[in-house]
Amino acid sequence: MKKFIRKVAVMTSGGDSPGMNAAIRSVVRSCAYYKLECVGVYRGYQGMIESDIVPMSARDVHHIIQKGGTVLKSARSKEFRTIEGRKKAYESLKEHKVDALVVIGGDGSFTGGMIFSQEFNFPVIGIPGTIDNDIFGTDYTLGYDTALNTAMEVIDKIRDTASSHNRLFFVEVMGRDSGFIALNTGIGAGAEEILIPEENMGLERLLESLEKSRRSGKSSSLVVVAEGDKTGANVFELADYVEKNLPQYDVRVSVLGHMQRGGSPSCFDRVLASRMGVKAIELLLDSQSNKMVGVQNNEMVAVDLENAVKEHHKISKEILRISDIMSV
Amino acid sequence: MKKFIRKVAVMTSGGDSPGMNAAIRSVVRSCAYYKLECVGVYRGYQGMIESDIVPMSARDVHHIIQKGGTVLKSARSKEFRTIEGRKKAYESLKEHKVDALVVIGGDGSFTGGMIFSQEFNFPVIGIPGTIDNDIFGTDYTLGYDTALNTAMEVIDKIRDTASSHNRLFFVEVMGRDSGFIALNTGIGAGAEEILIPEENMGLERLLESLEKSRRSGKSSSLVVVAEGDKTGANVFELADYVEKNLPQYDVRVSVLGHMQRGGSPSCFDRVLASRMGVKAIELLLDSQSNKMVGVQNNEMVAVDLENAVKEHHKISKEILRISDIMSV
Amino acid sequence: MKKFIRKVAVMTSGGDSPGMNAAIRSVVRSCAYYKLECVGVYRGYQGMIESDIVPMSARDVHHIIQKGGTVLKSARSKEFRTIEGRKKAYESLKEHKVDALVVIGGDGSFTGGMIFSQEFNFPVIGIPGTIDNDIFGTDYTLGYDTALNTAMEVIDKIRDTASSHNRLFFVEVMGRDSGFIALNTGIGAGAEEILIPEENMGLERLLESLEKSRRSGKSSSLVVVAEGDKTGANVFELADYVEKNLPQYDVRVSVLGHMQRGGSPSCFDRVLASRMGVKAIELLLDSQSNKMVGVQNNEMVAVDLENAVKEHHKISKEILRISDIMSV
Amino acid sequence: MKKFIRKVAVMTSGGDSPGMNAAIRSVVRSCAYYKLECVGVYRGYQGMIESDIVPMSARDVHHIIQKGGTVLKSARSKEFRTIEGRKKAYESLKEHKVDALVVIGGDGSFTGGMIFSQEFNFPVIGIPGTIDNDIFGTDYTLGYDTALNTAMEVIDKIRDTASSHNRLFFVEVMGRDSGFIALNTGIGAGAEEILIPEENMGLERLLESLEKSRRSGKSSSLVVVAEGDKTGANVFELADYVEKNLPQYDVRVSVLGHMQRGGSPSCFDRVLASRMGVKAIELLLDSQSNKMVGVQNNEMVAVDLENAVKEHHKISKEILRISDIMSV
Repeated sequence: MKKFIRKVAVMTSGGDSPGMNAAIRSVVRSCAYYKLECVGVYRGYQGMIESDIVPMSARDVHHIIQKGGTVLKSARSKEFRTIEGRKKAYESLKEHKVDALVVIGGDGSFTGGMIFSQEFNFPVIGIPGTIDNDIFGTDYTLGYDTALNTAMEVIDKIRDTASSHNRLFFVEVMGRDSGFIALNTGIGAGAEEILIPEENMGLERLLESLEKSRRSGKSSSLVVVAEGDKTGANVFELADYVEKNLPQYDVRVSVLGHMQRGGSPSCFDRVLASRMGVKAIELLLDSQSNKMVGVQNNEMVAVDLENAVKEHHKISKEILRISDIMSV
Repeated sequence: MKKFIRKVAVMTSGGDSPGMNAAIRSVVRSCAYYKLECVGVYRGYQGMIESDIVPMSARDVHHIIQKGGTVLKSARSKEFRTIEGRKKAYESLKEHKVDALVVIGGDGSFTGGMIFSQEFNFPVIGIPGTIDNDIFGTDYTLGYDTALNTAMEVIDKIRDTASSHNRLFFVEVMGRDSGFIALNTGIGAGAEEILIPEENMGLERLLESLEKSRRSGKSSSLVVVAEGDKTGANVFELADYVEKNLPQYDVRVSVLGHMQRGGSPSCFDRVLASRMGVKAIELLLDSQSNKMVGVQNNEMVAVDLENAVKEHHKISKEILRISDIMSV
Repeated sequence: MKKFIRKVAVMTSGGDSPGMNAAIRSVVRSCAYYKLECVGVYRGYQGMIESDIVPMSARDVHHIIQKGGTVLKSARSKEFRTIEGRKKAYESLKEHKVDALVVIGGDGSFTGGMIFSQEFNFPVIGIPGTIDNDIFGTDYTLGYDTALNTAMEVIDKIRDTASSHNRLFFVEVMGRDSGFIALNTGIGAGAEEILIPEENMGLERLLESLEKSRRSGKSSSLVVVAEGDKTGANVFELADYVEKNLPQYDVRVSVLGHMQRGGSPSCFDRVLASRMGVKAIELLLDSQSNKMVGVQNNEMVAVDLENAVKEHHKISKEILRISDIMSV
Repeated sequence: MKKFIRKVAVMTSGGDSPGMNAAIRSVVRSCAYYKLECVGVYRGYQGMIESDIVPMSARDVHHIIQKGGTVLKSARSKEFRTIEGRKKAYESLKEHKVDALVVIGGDGSFTGGMIFSQEFNFPVIGIPGTIDNDIFGTDYTLGYDTALNTAMEVIDKIRDTASSHNRLFFVEVMGRDSGFIALNTGIGAGAEEILIPEENMGLERLLESLEKSRRSGKSSSLVVVAEGDKTGANVFELADYVEKNLPQYDVRVSVLGHMQRGGSPSCFDRVLASRMGVKAIELLLDSQSNKMVGVQNNEMVAVDLENAVKEHHKISKEILRISDIMSV
């Protein structure tokens, strides 16, 4: 797929995450640096279909590195799942003389990009932007570090009030399929238990552990639960079950929800976004396509999109062990 | 009730709020300044009954001004609602040679303190510590300013993701009986609508207003809802109703919950707590009892506890009007 | 000066402060609400002279309430100090059919506005935007509450490292002529001493007090110093003097500087800005001019600009006393 | 040096950094988990000499994971540089029946530990706690990630006011010998230029670059300067030089200073500290000594203390290149 690249389109797709704006800025400035033209596509694949496309210069991305959300907005597109939709999208890009596409998003967005790339022989590079950190091929996804700090700071506040009242709190954090956020914010916030989709602790062991924790003299307790954990039907039923079986506990539930996707990105995410944007453009200049930019062992790498969407980023056994030792 | 005061007990009671530690510190240091002894009572009235009482010196409250929660912990006490319980509590205080009590808490704690004071002819001063700002006789309660900032900063983050997806968010903030938090965080976060217990907007008008807002070109919308609002049965049913009737909106709900009670107090709350603690001790030195310390027009005042618990702090019509004008 | 107002210009002038954008938004939306046209003037009086003026609609101020700085930018203008400059400025406004001006700024900006108003019989309303809180006629200026939190949070961090090393820190905060920021952040951060322009403590008493504090067992100490304090020639010489005279102290200096002017405004400042913008437009609709909007005892008021610039907001004796008691 | 370990001492030494408390907690809890006794040494090597040593149980480190500074305090010790001092220190440890030492600190602290270990055949493990990230053998030091966020958030605030006034700001961040903080906060805050000790840009090229930046339409500029940068004599002289040579710029200086060492640690630092504490104890249980715990490619590793202190952590060329591209 050797093609001479003169004009690049950048877009954000799927759930938003902090650092997406920093990545947009980096793609736009890298284009300027390498004397390529750049356009922004609004509202992901849907905006591509509707030709919602604008030119972007280095000055247009002034002062967006610190902003949460995405200035290009995001959306899901049913139409892009049809060949007709993708054809319209391709025609929009041709109309704007775009030679290559950089997609900032997650699994679903990459799958769409891969199909599009194959159908129209069109260069596509992915940048992993999702707070869940569950994408294979990169140690960190954009927004993950920020979401950890956002969630942990809120759990710190909940700890204040939990301690004042000797209460047991169940705090649900994001992570439908993966426990990265729960595990790391749980360790960071000093949670007594952490429940994640990757491991079913079982209700019995949870009761035992909480009972033991109470007897050891802990006056308050925090259990951090990933959205996708399977121990209870959901966090509210889990809390009810514990309250029934350990009546000495005054139990409360807090669901952190969408706030975890917002906020100004951390330094880590801003620098990572800047690196990923440069790498994406340099891959295109090197005639590569169907790759996702990743970071492995602090180095920028290119991963086949196919692998990135087929496999999952696994939680490290070491970190699981740390959480056990810390709640001794 | 003229009594010579040599030893003062301080405690926190009811729901905790940021600034309680700063108030404890101020009571303890004011005692040191005026050469009074001071003791801390753990876990509110229950700890008083159980004689969970420790001496406190100026150095013991080092580095607590910035802490959320309460180092003296808080609890609700059924036993204190009985005359037997209160008698035990009185005996604990006598045993520790305590001459007067400073209670940091809300309505319920003040009612308890008032009864106690009358039954045992014991000097009691209240300091209003609650995030709800609904206590009569003071322009501000301790923790309210901090809770406003905490909630607003979280709503700012939700706005990031709402804007990226053109979504409508219903955000529930604390306030079972009063709309202070909802109204002020709603204005601060630029909410399109604000629903509070003091005014029933009605479902019809809410739909109309959201519909109008959409037509005026707003791409995302935030509705801030106080816990105690009566427009819907609760925030989830409200959201369902709107989604059914305005299907063009992608609706989401976020309940902020207990995080609003935690966190390091704002400068406003730390200074207010410091002033209130001094005033409480100076009232006792002036042989006053059954008073709540308040701030009115930037001056420290003493309010009869009886009035403080009988009436409610009202929301200003002017601020309600501001919220209408801002969401034009 | 009865004039029918159809079009209002708004601008920011002098040093910027958090909440200026919220005030701009409020002025613009209040105009929309009352069916007035609105324009924004860039770079204060200089931009007015250069006719750097753009129309502003309710949608143009979307998502600026939470931003630090000022989207209209600010500047100082030597030219506006001449009658020729002011004449040009007046002609710019006439050319844009502007009937009235809202100036968000401090003392200097108000003086300019007052002269302009008198020379050209032109309606001018001031909104007090400065972090210093030193303007007469208002209990709070825009940005003050935010600056208190910004400075206090930084001093909290300095306290962490001071405590770890048993050090004495001199922290300089803003306030060339007034000690509001120093006094309130000093109390909020639990400073051992607070030095402000309104009171010359004297070097002798400072040494004594620090010596006493050390003997009382305090392991670290913080002295908060207002820029304009007269105890030493400046904060560095002050620190040198103390280090020479109390060699047992390991002394460090930190000058907080311009960061105090930036950052996202607090809820207090955003609500205050919203109220002030509405009041400014309502004063104009009521045919008033040469007034500053202020807040007194939680009510919006109109103060003669002449008084606002002639007198100064005084620090309360009560708060000074609190600071003494707290550092017992 | 095979020794059976029953009791471990932990201490913090040198400049403090966020995450030290989290590391202390992890060492203490890991001891509890592995049924070892644990003591804390106050004020580093000096406290060791003075036998300022206390037992620490799992409950004693409750609620310190989120605290800045170090609960064990830190100090520099001249006495420990003498053989007599080290002998006293050794006797203190023997008196408390301590079998091994974990030192949380930087270069200097490790050198001391290494000498001590060799002289008395005493097991010593180091944990790298410093915000500078300049220690060889670990990708990250404890406190570095937090310091990046602290400094960047302050620079974000300075950007607000810089933009409002079209000013040029020189912001000095920590880093006497290394540019990690300057380079990463500079990229994260979108600085126009970044000056670090590793590269002498030269005054000529700085002027050129600023001049070019101004012509390209940038309205304000930020230059982030590491403490140890050699371009000017210091940041104030640098600013003076630029102001003289580019008089169209209104130049300001801000020195961030000690605040960068304080504050609640980020999630990254808390998790890293937890991992490092576990690894330190597990190395001791594995009869290892004279090692520093490090993290390389997300794995915990043991590095010879000798190498850790002899070499330096180098800045990556890739990141330097990113900073050039981003300021295009």
